[in-house]
Amino acid sequence: MARDIQGLVARMTLEEKAGMCSGLDFWHMKGVERLGIPSIMLTDGPHGLRKQRASADHLGLFDSVPATCFPSAAGMASSWDRELIRKVGVALGEECQAEEVAVLLGPGANIKRSPLCGRNFEYFSEDPYLSSRMAASHIEGVQSQGVGTSLKHFAANNQEHRRMTGDSIVDERTLREIYLASFELAVKEAQPWTVMCSYNKVNGIYASENEYLLTDILKEEWGHEGLVVSDWGAVNERADGLAAGLELEMPSSGGAGERKIIEAVRSGRLPEYKLDRAVERLLRIIFMAVDNRKEMAAYDAKEHHALAREVARESMVLLKNEDGILPLRKEGHLAVIGELAVKPRYQGGGSSHIKPTRLEDIREEIVKSAGAGAQIAYAQGYELQSDASDDRLLDDAKRIASQADAAVLFVGLPERYESEGFDRTHLRLPDNQIELILAVAEVQPNLALVLSNGAPIEMPWLGSVKAVLEAYLGGQALGGAIADLLFGDANPCGKLAETFPERLEHNPSQLSFPGEGDRVEYREGLFVGYRYYDAKQIKPLFPFGFGLSYTSFVYKNLLIGSKSLRDDEHVTVSVEIGNTGLRAGKEIVQLYVRDVHSTMIRPSKELKGFAKVELQPGETRTVSFTLDKRAFAYYSVDLKDWHVETGEFEIIIGSSSQDARLTDTLHVQSTSVVKPVYTRNTTVGDLSGDSRGEAVIREWVARTPFGAMASEEGSGSEMISAMLRYMPLRGLIGFSGGALSDEDLNEMLKQLNG
Amino acid sequence: MARDIQGLVARMTLEEKAGMCSGLDFWHMKGVERLGIPSIMLTDGPHGLRKQRASADHLGLFDSVPATCFPSAAGMASSWDRELIRKVGVALGEECQAEEVAVLLGPGANIKRSPLCGRNFEYFSEDPYLSSRMAASHIEGVQSQGVGTSLKHFAANNQEHRRMTGDSIVDERTLREIYLASFELAVKEAQPWTVMCSYNKVNGIYASENEYLLTDILKEEWGHEGLVVSDWGAVNERADGLAAGLELEMPSSGGAGERKIIEAVRSGRLPEYKLDRAVERLLRIIFMAVDNRKEMAAYDAKEHHALAREVARESMVLLKNEDGILPLRKEGHLAVIGELAVKPRYQGGGSSHIKPTRLEDIREEIVKSAGAGAQIAYAQGYELQSDASDDRLLDDAKRIASQADAAVLFVGLPERYESEGFDRTHLRLPDNQIELILAVAEVQPNLALVLSNGAPIEMPWLGSVKAVLEAYLGGQALGGAIADLLFGDANPCGKLAETFPERLEHNPSQLSFPGEGDRVEYREGLFVGYRYYDAKQIKPLFPFGFGLSYTSFVYKNLLIGSKSLRDDEHVTVSVEIGNTGLRAGKEIVQLYVRDVHSTMIRPSKELKGFAKVELQPGETRTVSFTLDKRAFAYYSVDLKDWHVETGEFEIIIGSSSQDARLTDTLHVQSTSVVKPVYTRNTTVGDLSGDSRGEAVIREWVARTPFGAMASEEGSGSEMISAMLRYMPLRGLIGFSGGALSDEDLNEMLKQLNG
Repeated sequence: MARDIQGLVARMTLEEKAGMCSGLDFWHMKGVERLGIPSIMLTDGPHGLRKQRASADHLGLFDSVPATCFPSAAGMASSWDRELIRKVGVALGEECQAEEVAVLLGPGANIKRSPLCGRNFEYFSEDPYLSSRMAASHIEGVQSQGVGTSLKHFAANNQEHRRMTGDSIVDERTLREIYLASFELAVKEAQPWTVMCSYNKVNGIYASENEYLLTDILKEEWGHEGLVVSDWGAVNERADGLAAGLELEMPSSGGAGERKIIEAVRSGRLPEYKLDRAVERLLRIIFMAVDNRKEMAAYDAKEHHALAREVARESMVLLKNEDGILPLRKEGHLAVIGELAVKPRYQGGGSSHIKPTRLEDIREEIVKSAGAGAQIAYAQGYELQSDASDDRLLDDAKRIASQADAAVLFVGLPERYESEGFDRTHLRLPDNQIELILAVAEVQPNLALVLSNGAPIEMPWLGSVKAVLEAYLGGQALGGAIADLLFGDANPCGKLAETFPERLEHNPSQLSFPGEGDRVEYREGLFVGYRYYDAKQIKPLFPFGFGLSYTSFVYKNLLIGSKSLRDDEHVTVSVEIGNTGLRAGKEIVQLYVRDVHSTMIRPSKELKGFAKVELQPGETRTVSFTLDKRAFAYYSVDLKDWHVETGEFEIIIGSSSQDARLTDTLHVQSTSVVKPVYTRNTTVGDLSGDSRGEAVIREWVARTPFGAMASEEGSGSEMISAMLRYMPLRGLIGFSGGALSDEDLNEMLKQLNG
Repeated sequence: MARDIQGLVARMTLEEKAGMCSGLDFWHMKGVERLGIPSIMLTDGPHGLRKQRASADHLGLFDSVPATCFPSAAGMASSWDRELIRKVGVALGEECQAEEVAVLLGPGANIKRSPLCGRNFEYFSEDPYLSSRMAASHIEGVQSQGVGTSLKHFAANNQEHRRMTGDSIVDERTLREIYLASFELAVKEAQPWTVMCSYNKVNGIYASENEYLLTDILKEEWGHEGLVVSDWGAVNERADGLAAGLELEMPSSGGAGERKIIEAVRSGRLPEYKLDRAVERLLRIIFMAVDNRKEMAAYDAKEHHALAREVARESMVLLKNEDGILPLRKEGHLAVIGELAVKPRYQGGGSSHIKPTRLEDIREEIVKSAGAGAQIAYAQGYELQSDASDDRLLDDAKRIASQADAAVLFVGLPERYESEGFDRTHLRLPDNQIELILAVAEVQPNLALVLSNGAPIEMPWLGSVKAVLEAYLGGQALGGAIADLLFGDANPCGKLAETFPERLEHNPSQLSFPGEGDRVEYREGLFVGYRYYDAKQIKPLFPFGFGLSYTSFVYKNLLIGSKSLRDDEHVTVSVEIGNTGLRAGKEIVQLYVRDVHSTMIRPSKELKGFAKVELQPGETRTVSFTLDKRAFAYYSVDLKDWHVETGEFEIIIGSSSQDARLTDTLHVQSTSVVKPVYTRNTTVGDLSGDSRGEAVIREWVARTPFGAMASEEGSGSEMISAMLRYMPLRGLIGFSGGALSDEDLNEMLKQLNG
């Protein structure tokens, strides 16, 4: 429906306009009744709908209407399946329509800088390519139902420690290539109705009043058409925020925010046209919600539960499977151990915590899947609420384990260990769970572990168990999914979207996390996740992109469409994947690009393509990727643009980041012309390749002692040639003993630069 | 002799004064004949005198008068023996007097940031405490003979790659605690006559015109009384350099430098009093040289050679000695293999390269030491000039090795691998030497290696050899020293002054070395050397402070003089060391300090004391250390001073950085009063400990939803308390729904800060 937004704004008073820039209450935007502008509702997400009941506390953390709880983002990303994420988005959108929610607050596209970050379970990946694509699919799904999303938390919000006042100090190139890149494609491709600015400062300026982020980059460079909403309580100075591009303050500040905007407009500090533009954006979103509202919408909770189970199956990652202990047989005695099997941890703590429509009991699902042929015993093993061991629980567990043919141990992080709001300080499981693992391993060699956790843990006990299934926080249907995978009714097909380090200290941010006071420097720069472990040659416990299957795959016939291209051209890469095992399965094929030689510091390789392919036993399929400039480029701070250095690039097709299966190279030619500017501090070596410069310099060098020496052989000749290579042009004057002058140099520079 | 320096300056013309600020030629300062100001000579060092013959090339690299070649600094530092280094200084001073040299250009106190730096052999350590003390002793020794030194290269000159134009980007705290600290004590304690500024820029400004470094810190904070001389060719803009505190440009710029100074004074850009002060400093040093000149001085070359042998023995580090294969018996058949045994690499390439008074042949010294009871065969093994294997040489080596009872292999880095002027790009030995090691190991299990190199190498072949003696670049008497150690006529007693990483990629600067173009960011910050390997829990090949002996030592009775002190007090720490073996030997005892809890990012531990103690078998001695504020402090960028955080500190007495033998703690109380300043972005948690603030805040919180929620038990309570802890005060207003206002906050801040 065409609406005259500008006309509407023109009819509004200053007070009405300022008023719209803050929330009505905790969960609603303001409307203007006399102009027919309604109030719409925003609620938390992102892996389920958290619509607060009217009676709940103001923060609305503890009571909400039932909604389907899908696996949290850490798990979903491990599916590497964009279509599946889109389907989840569709389901979420349907539930929002049914509950009259206009905007679902999510997805989160923050990069997992440290495994300690308490909110990592809500984020997708350590890699911006993967993360941004997962986010885009999520947004597309939700918004296809006429419901808005809020891509969050923009930006460089990578820890919970001092999250409301912390200042993320990140160099421009790292911001562009890692932290912003994770939002960029999602904005450009999926146009989220809203983007949520984060609590923290970025390079000294609160994200909520950071014009560079909210206006220059988000609105102007990326073309975001929606509105920016503050994270709840992220506003520092409301008028500064509005000027910087923050349209909506949430929650209501009880009138304080609008008063500040009004004062700023009246005093002339804030031009009214900026307020008008903000209100135009607010109105556009409100009317998009109105126009897309589906009255009397409903959803099929059973279908959504089935989808949650499908997603959970696709998200879980088989990390270890010695002697092919998995899948388990549906016969004999099986011990199921661990309180998490009956009190599952299926979602994270904090604003994303929802009330599921139902919740599967893992033990029951195992019993159901195993069928009549198997006998299943259960022991609690440990108290989830405590870190202290309980001898009785241990003894029970050992007893039933020793009497069984195999044991499955359910361990993981209690909610008190990881949640929005605070970071972990170590990567260990609770002591009583570790003790249980070691105790059970002593009596039962056929031991499989199922992990429930939102982020990596250390596994010093890994050698004691035969199998590990990483179930992440698997949503309300995790029980059935785990049973499906344990018994082989489904074949594990998730791969890690993050590195599991062998020990906490190995992680890239270790030396500067969580910072000093409010200041956190991102000193590792570009070297986040696998980019770091690659460059430092530190072997991770499990690498990015890793995951096992019950079948096996072969890679062959890597074909690069063109071995030489310009950076404004595309190239197609294809590879054949075959299922060489006896079960149907899915393989996640990864394409990494490596710049073979670069004058810049670059990661060894970067993910630039992925595909998930399903194959029947014996079946082979061709997977294709299209690469464009961005696949080869780095962000040039000098050029303020993405730039490709002309040269060779390696295409690496891998089954994980550490398991390259096929590689080949191609040549990319830059189309940007970058003319060098020579100065008195340009080195002699830097003139090489400039034919005019080289000729002049040869003559100059001849007039210094280096002339004779450089041509001599013998001791020190490497040093002399290096000394000359690194010598600034002005240095030749100094060593010429008066034969060359500053005037000569200025003349030469004029010619070379002319 | 008292002289009227200021009177002399007053009598000089502008041209004379400006003239004195540049060299006369390559190696002399200018004098002024009409005023009786003589020209004095400066020559390269630091481990020997490189006085150019008149006939040599202008750079004077390839021909110089004979002088004693002592081990280079990398080796000398491994002695950890200040008195020994002082003795070397005395000997160098004597040789300078004999050769009429007024100032010896050294020592170098740059920190070994990367093992790749081509000039590391000239530097002492990765640790500023050790490096600065080695430098101070060297300076004291030389200057005790009335000869000046030049502490170099000031500052942050930690690579050769693009050394003349590179810009070292180092944060202030890292500069102070690591890179400047390595110079600081040497300047304060030993007052070098001159300090040499480096080629590179530091944080954007050439060291040669960096007023912050040359004037604010060096002259004013540290009280340096001597002059600053440019590294040869380091001057960028001469007048800017003079204004910044660079008194002397070297070498002569053929008149260009003085012309620029004259112009700058005439145009008023450079106040003449700055030039006068510079000339005063120049004159003071010239007359110090004159007044300390010993006419007809001579030195005993034989004695100095003997000293060189003693120093070499103390400097070499026994890294491995499986099955006690060393010392070798002086009987049976011994194979000596490797061209380095007869063409020893005993010093580094570049400006420090001298012409020794004599040079020992290692093979001959071994034959001499072994005596008549042993039969010694020699094979070349490889071509030092090439990396390519030679089958004939390999076969010869294998043949003599297989016929012997034991073999000693001499391998190391050829000069073409490491030198002033360029950096290495990897840490490997030449391929042909690696092949030789593996080939000989196949036929001779009793295999000892002697390494000649200026900096760490990777040792993937370490498992194939039983013993490794790191001989560094051992000076002209290395042959005798090696023979002494191999046969047990001396007991190895050196320890590493730097970490040997298992692989290049593990080194702390890996991700930002050697930088992009001219820009090199010191992103690892404080985490240089063992500070990094500690914090990252990366196991080095050989840790800092490590070295074996033919005897063994026991540590006991650690005593801390006071368990609680103020930071303006000293504390004495003592420990007993006993020789529990059968040979006399020396142990290097190391004292590290760890801040148990800190709000700042700090290394796990830092070296704050060391002592070398000689013990007869069965003997026990007490070693004492005195610790002052600096042992516990970090450099506070906010306070612009060293600061101790009140709390517990651990004293770690170790035999190496990874081998703590005894530990205890003490409590240090800060005497600085740092009053917090509260702002609207102070967090609720930051008010804890401030009793007035806590009381006010309790009441405030009660007026927000957090009041009720924080007291509730159950799911999410950790999150709520964390949310509150990290909430800025202004955030409470937002969440109060209008119950609190900015005015309330301002009033509260006034009271708290008042």
